[in-house]
Amino acid sequence: MTIDDNKKAVLLLSGGLDSSTVLAIAQADGYDVHAISFSYGQRHNHELECAAAIAKKAAIRHVVLDLDLSKFGGSALTADIDVPKDRDEATMNADIPVTYVPARNTVFLSCALSMAEALGTGDIFIGVNALDYSGYPDCRADYISAFQTMANLATKGGVEGTSPVTIHTPLIDLTKAEIIEKGMKLGVDYGLTISCYDPSADGAACGHCDACQLRLKGFREAGLVDPTRYQEGA
Amino acid sequence: MTIDDNKKAVLLLSGGLDSSTVLAIAQADGYDVHAISFSYGQRHNHELECAAAIAKKAAIRHVVLDLDLSKFGGSALTADIDVPKDRDEATMNADIPVTYVPARNTVFLSCALSMAEALGTGDIFIGVNALDYSGYPDCRADYISAFQTMANLATKGGVEGTSPVTIHTPLIDLTKAEIIEKGMKLGVDYGLTISCYDPSADGAACGHCDACQLRLKGFREAGLVDPTRYQEGA
Repeated sequence: MTIDDNKKAVLLLSGGLDSSTVLAIAQADGYDVHAISFSYGQRHNHELECAAAIAKKAAIRHVVLDLDLSKFGGSALTADIDVPKDRDEATMNADIPVTYVPARNTVFLSCALSMAEALGTGDIFIGVNALDYSGYPDCRADYISAFQTMANLATKGGVEGTSPVTIHTPLIDLTKAEIIEKGMKLGVDYGLTISCYDPSADGAACGHCDACQLRLKGFREAGLVDPTRYQEGA
Repeated sequence: MTIDDNKKAVLLLSGGLDSSTVLAIAQADGYDVHAISFSYGQRHNHELECAAAIAKKAAIRHVVLDLDLSKFGGSALTADIDVPKDRDEATMNADIPVTYVPARNTVFLSCALSMAEALGTGDIFIGVNALDYSGYPDCRADYISAFQTMANLATKGGVEGTSPVTIHTPLIDLTKAEIIEKGMKLGVDYGLTISCYDPSADGAACGHCDACQLRLKGFREAGLVDPTRYQEGA
């Protein structure tokens, strides 16, 4: 793997399975990755510890931005609303669930855009995925495409053409199993990642929220054992 | 003025002349305005005191979000770069100046979008203006239109059509003098506002940066005296 210092990119790193895989893909493509994570008022900050561990292992710069979206409320991930458990796939796909955080990816991508422009690059990586996902509107290809169009009108580098914005979504058409297989080939340590919407205080995954179910199904389909830590009896 | 509690809107309130005028316009249109300001690492936090005073006078909810864009750098407003002074209009219009903060309006509008969706509304007001302005790309109509398109794909309310997003830009085609005349008719107290990019420690405007020059020209053309406080000899 050869990293090109002149090929900088910003990565949204959540500490989960998807963004860790995207990090490995971006590095394999030679990008000098600068990661950003958010302390956004999420119920459990354990994912930030995972993000820090993943960034450290990959030897990349990692910025954590405080941005308290819980001031607005409106989501089970930032307000006092129960996280739904043991939903079947049909239910998952029917509605936008209460774990949706209003405009979260837009806020995160906008901050990544600011960071990228300050770095002099337009390359931004995000691990959105519209197959095995929670039905959030801001994970779909037409949303990403509209964000990219907007970003090229918003920024100096976009308008002047010196650093046109590209939102890279290498996972968007992959199943969770395909993502895991790709990550395993690139040496991603999934034991460092957590995907759970409702982990215990010590960071063990619940095994029953949408994110845990999609993840477990992915490992099952890939014929692998999920190395993340689950709560006893999960 | 009758405020309709069922007609909520989010306003980006900077503490400057433009956003204070937009607040008065939104209230005159009957909106229940919820304002948001940002502590984003700007060189001087005096504008946040102005924003608080303006919100208090208008009797509206005012959220201040910490969001430290100075972690990224890249602007004279957030990094250690001199603010340009006494530039003529031709120079102002020629380039995007160093006071441009990378993707600032995109970051701010995205947070307003999150706040709006949590409130159950899609109405967002911003005081951008593309006539007497500093040449920032994220103040122009085509950028705003692209943001609105993106926002309607990004949010639950936009996708489901329950709260379609509208970015209201009532000042976009007005000169600074026309903005001031409109605000005066609506009773805006411009003595509470500050527009300076480089105020003194006690909050007096410099009178020479692009923002001060555009503001002073506006008052001059409107045949009025600017009630804001300028530094001695400015």
